[in-house]
Order: sequence, then structure tokens, then C-alpha cells
Amino acid sequence: MNHGTEVLLGLFVIFVGAQIGAEIAQRLKLPAVVGEIAAGCILGASVLGWVKVVEPFESLAEIGAVFLLFSVGLETRIEDLKKVGRVSTLVGVTGVILPFLMGAAWAKLSGYDTPKAAFIAAAFVATSAGITARVLQDMGVLHRTESRVILGAAVIDDILAMLLLGVVTALQGGQGVNLVSLALVLLQAIGFVALMALVGTRIMRRSSPLLEVPINPLSPLTISVAVCLGLAVAASYLGLAAIIGAFLAGMVAAEAKQRHTLEKQMQSISALIVPFFFVLTGAKVNLSVLGSVSALGTVLMITLLAVAGKLLGCGGAALSLGRKSALTVGMGMVPRGEVGIIVASLGQKAGVFSEMMYAIIIVMSLLTSVIAPPVLGVLLTKEA
Amino acid sequence: MNHGTEVLLGLFVIFVGAQIGAEIAQRLKLPAVVGEIAAGCILGASVLGWVKVVEPFESLAEIGAVFLLFSVGLETRIEDLKKVGRVSTLVGVTGVILPFLMGAAWAKLSGYDTPKAAFIAAAFVATSAGITARVLQDMGVLHRTESRVILGAAVIDDILAMLLLGVVTALQGGQGVNLVSLALVLLQAIGFVALMALVGTRIMRRSSPLLEVPINPLSPLTISVAVCLGLAVAASYLGLAAIIGAFLAGMVAAEAKQRHTLEKQMQSISALIVPFFFVLTGAKVNLSVLGSVSALGTVLMITLLAVAGKLLGCGGAALSLGRKSALTVGMGMVPRGEVGIIVASLGQKAGVFSEMMYAIIIVMSLLTSVIAPPVLGVLLTKEA
Repeated sequence: MNHGTEVLLGLFVIFVGAQIGAEIAQRLKLPAVVGEIAAGCILGASVLGWVKVVEPFESLAEIGAVFLLFSVGLETRIEDLKKVGRVSTLVGVTGVILPFLMGAAWAKLSGYDTPKAAFIAAAFVATSAGITARVLQDMGVLHRTESRVILGAAVIDDILAMLLLGVVTALQGGQGVNLVSLALVLLQAIGFVALMALVGTRIMRRSSPLLEVPINPLSPLTISVAVCLGLAVAASYLGLAAIIGAFLAGMVAAEAKQRHTLEKQMQSISALIVPFFFVLTGAKVNLSVLGSVSALGTVLMITLLAVAGKLLGCGGAALSLGRKSALTVGMGMVPRGEVGIIVASLGQKAGVFSEMMYAIIIVMSLLTSVIAPPVLGVLLTKEA
Repeated sequence: MNHGTEVLLGLFVIFVGAQIGAEIAQRLKLPAVVGEIAAGCILGASVLGWVKVVEPFESLAEIGAVFLLFSVGLETRIEDLKKVGRVSTLVGVTGVILPFLMGAAWAKLSGYDTPKAAFIAAAFVATSAGITARVLQDMGVLHRTESRVILGAAVIDDILAMLLLGVVTALQGGQGVNLVSLALVLLQAIGFVALMALVGTRIMRRSSPLLEVPINPLSPLTISVAVCLGLAVAASYLGLAAIIGAFLAGMVAAEAKQRHTLEKQMQSISALIVPFFFVLTGAKVNLSVLGSVSALGTVLMITLLAVAGKLLGCGGAALSLGRKSALTVGMGMVPRGEVGIIVASLGQKAGVFSEMMYAIIIVMSLLTSVIAPPVLGVLLTKEA
């Protein structure tokens, strides 16, 4: 079988698997994304081995996450985010501090030295906005206060997590932390987000024709997609997650007159490409690492800490919204997803994590991503 | 820059390049696809070197071609194809025979032995339906008789070219040609095409609800895409081009009640992914092979032969449609595109083609693909 056929077969298997999984999940009154991740777990190396985590599927998964956050941004108005700005910031900040402290405490107690413990703790911190955003979209509750708090907090969480990663990486070499360069990184990131969220949206509100090109009837879509890819690249350059840039691009496009057409067009595109992200997320879960009893214990312990850290840190900070909503916000910040995986890879490359620690953190990142959607589904259904 | 960022940057460059190229082409009253291919030539290794022909872009290009032919199939009714069945078949058959004979004659005169000459001649044969289909779509003339003749002939051309490739490959080893296995291959291919085009469309005409899943509002789209990928894989297994399977899937979906919604949804998806195919086609043109004067002469000679073979073979067979239409049909069958490239790669792997011959055939395949769209654009505008 030549390469082209193999790729098409892989696409077919992933796509059909995602659709079947989504369908089953929805009949069980769960968010569709739960079924897509479950399909990935079954199709992946641990069970059937039909889906390999290789190119071009990995890139398609990343593009899927980018378009997902773009379409979530399209349904998010900056005015609404501003209203929850204070709570979001609090949720973002304590949601970084508490998991970091808990992770560091665990690592120190397990015998790691301070620099290593700090790196391990960093892996507890970063939230992946994609998984929760998809659940909120599946359940049709993106307009709710909790959803807005989560989305705003995810942006802040990502900025802080990036800074933290800079600090712990510097600590490993025994160099001191360069406060000036850190401040610069922080300023760049905040400047980028503020520029897009405040200035970008304002420009778009006043001049929607910017999205039109005279001859091209599809130009609002093509220009928006170009902006989405451009901001994803820009965010990535600044050390932020690419999906944060895509989310900002979506928020800018949300201020355009043509946003309803765009939402419709993005629905078709998302239906096609977003499932790749979730099936691949599932396919990455390597259950074999849970083989030995002691490793299994460590994984469960770390996952529990990771869940508790966000539930307490983020949920606690959102208590002003009421208990149920606070619980939803806390749970919404639990998934570590690909961000946790990125930290694990960096830690392994830097020689901080052993093979086992690396595997454990990856499984923790994925478990939090697999656990959160069904729980969120139940929480949001009960509240509705 | 990490791999993810690099991929996103590549996507951004390709996508924006395609949009700018398309825009300029349209202002010059040329089909948009001309601008996309030109953008690829400029972005590729020969000029700027900003776009590399690597994964995941290669796979995205292939997916783009698959979705393009699916959406062209969506605009093609089997009843209309049947009406031009006789002319299409004639165009397909003579359009294979004449270029093969011309290619073989040239190769023999250039001193190649018969088996090698036959392989070189096979590279003259196969038409790539994608490029012409896109021009016809860009110009909004998919409903015209010439367009239908071309699409039907492209399917027949692909079946014959596959057979021919089987024969010339067998000739290389000095083994005799196994007529039984060839007949089997032919039967399989014809059976597949007939089953989809005749039985598949009939089933869909009678039972459009097949495309609906109760809970999923987007299911006509997702099921159609699954069928498209499935038939692309199936065609590929049978030795046909994957895009033939996608085209058949589109024709099946064209019989569904929901075809207008599907067409609209596919428009958004195509706008996003199809440009990758054309920009990559342009980026593959390696102008440096034209460096030496003798190679340049050979390339021009071969390209001329390749163009003349299809113009005479296909155009001649379509003379019953009138001269202008016959010229359009002939020109429409000229692009060799990725099919020519595949034959060149097979020839190189089999040790039949020298490095130079390989490069020359690739450049010929690409030149025919670059020349045809603007000429077709002019022909179709004049006729309109």
C-alpha cells in the first residue's frame, strides 16, 4: 500500500471512528467529544492499534484544535468576557498557584531536589482550553457565565504557565532567573492579547468590510481563516499556545457583521477537522504504562492531585458564582491535554524527567482530559 | 521554532499565497486556480523557497484533490454523464492511444529499447482530472456538454492508464504479460466504477434519509465525507486514482435530496483545503532542471508532444461537438498533474528512468498542468 493510500485509510478510520463514538456518546446523553476521545483510546496503540500518532495526523489534530478555538472565539464577545474579567483573572491566577504548590510538595516529598520538583510542578499547571471549550460548545452553553469565566481564565492561565515554564527551565541549569527577560516575555504576551482582544475587536466592529474582497464571494471566510492562522503563529512565536491566538482571532471575527455566516461555514469545517484532535488525544493514551502496580499508584495519585489542584484553586476562586457554577468552573479547568504533554516533553529533553516520570505525566495529562468531559456533561445537564 | 509552529507558519504562507494568487488571476480574468499554481511556483524551491514539499503539506494537498473531485462529483448528475457516454468513451480511449504511440515513437527514436520506450510512453498518457475540474468549477461551466465529456473521459482514461501501467511494468522484467490477471484488474476497476455510478446513485436517489442520523444535524455532511474517504481508499486499492473514488462518491451524493446543502457546506471546506493541492503543484516545479540547453530542448519537445497527443487524440474524438468544443475537450485532457508524477516515480524506482529522464517527465507533467488552465480560461470565456 503506497503512502497516499495509507494516509487516506487513516483519515477514513479516524473520521468514521469519531462519528460512531460521537453518536454513541450523544445517545448516552454525554457530550459528543467524550465519544471521540473514547474512540481514539480504542483505535490507538493500547487496544486496536489502527490509528498511529504520526504525521500527517498529528498536524491535522493541531489544525483541528486551532479551528476549534477559532470557532469558540467566534461565539465569544469581548464585552461579555470583560464583564467576568475580575473573576476570570482570579480563577486563572489561583488556578496556577495552587496546583503548582501541590505538585511541588508532592515532588519534594517523593525525594526530588528543588529545581526538579519545580519542573514537575509546572506540569501540574497548564490547562488545555480545547477540551472544555468543545464540551461547552457540544452542550450549547458557551453563552453562560461559567463558560466565559473558563475561557477568560484559560487565556490568563496560559500566559502564567508560559512564564512559569521559563522560570523552571532557567532553574535547571543553576543559572539565576533573569527577571528582566521574564518581564519582557510577560509584557509581550499581555500586549499581544490586549492588542487583539481590545484594539482588534474594536477595529473589526467599525469596519466589517475589511473581511470582503470584491471578487471572492467566500472572502469573509478565507480572510478570517488567514487571520486565524496568522495569530496562531504569532501566539506560538511569543511562547503562548497557538490555540490562544486562534481564540483571539475568533473573538475579533465575532465583532464582524458577517459573523453568523462565518459561524455556519466554520461548523462544516469544524465537523470535518476537529474530531482529529480528539481521536488523536485518545489514541495517545498508553495504557501499558499502568502495567506495574506501583506506577499505577503514582499515576492515580498524581492525577488526583492534578484534579484537586484545579478544583480547589479555580473552583474556590469562582465561589462568588455559587457552588454549582464554581464546581463547573473548577472542573472546566481540569484538562491538561496537549499543554501538559508539551511540558512533559520539554522536561524529558532537559533531562529532568526519567522515562517513567515522563510517561506518568503524559498519562496524567490525558486522564484529566478524558475524565473532565463526562463529569462536565453531567454537571451542565443537571444545571440546565 | 518547534515543529507545530513551523507547520502553522507553512499553512499560513500557503493559504495566504493561494488567496493573493487567486485574487490577481481573477482580476486578470483568468481562473483562480491559475493564480494558485503561480503562487506555488513563486513560493516553491525554485524562487523563494518558502514552501517545502513535505508532510503534512503533501497529505493536505492530496486531501484537497480528493475533496475537490468530491465537490465536482456533487455537481455532476449520472443522467447527464450517460448522455455523453459514447463521446466520453471515445475521447478517453483515443486520448490514451495517441499520446502513447507518440511517446513511444519519440522514445524509440531517442534510442531507448522497446520496454523502456513503453514505460516512457505510459508517462504521456494519464490525465489528471483535478486541474481541469477546478478550472471548469471556477468558470461555472460544470453543466456544459464539454465539461461532462471531459469528466467522463477522465474516468475512462484513468482505468486505461492503470492497465497500461500494469502492462509496461510487467514488460520491464522481461516477464510476459499475464493477460488473465490484467483482465481481472480491468474487471475490478470497471465493476467498481459501474457499481458506484449506476447502483450507488440509484440507491441514493431512492433513499436520501440514508444520509441522516437522528441526533447529528450535520450528518448528511459527515456521512458523505466518510463515503468520500472510503471510496477514495477503495479506488486506490484497486489501482485507480483516489480522486476517481472521490468523484464517484460525489456523484452518488449528488442524487440525494440534501445535495444543495451539501454543495454549500463543501464550498466552505473546499475554499480551505483545495488551494493546498494547487500551491503544492506549483511548488513542485523545479525550474533548475531547465538549466542546461539540451535538457530544456528535451523538456519543451516532450511537453509539446504531450500537449499535441491529447489535443489530437481527445479533441479529434470530440469533433462531433463542433470545433471549439473539441478544442476545449482536448485542452481539458492535457494536464498530467500528479498522475504523471506518480508514473515518473514508479519508473525511477523500477530503474527505467535516469535521474534526468525522471526530472524531465516531472517537469512535463507540471508544465502541462500549468499551461492548460489559462488556455482553458480563454477558450471558455470566448465561448461564453
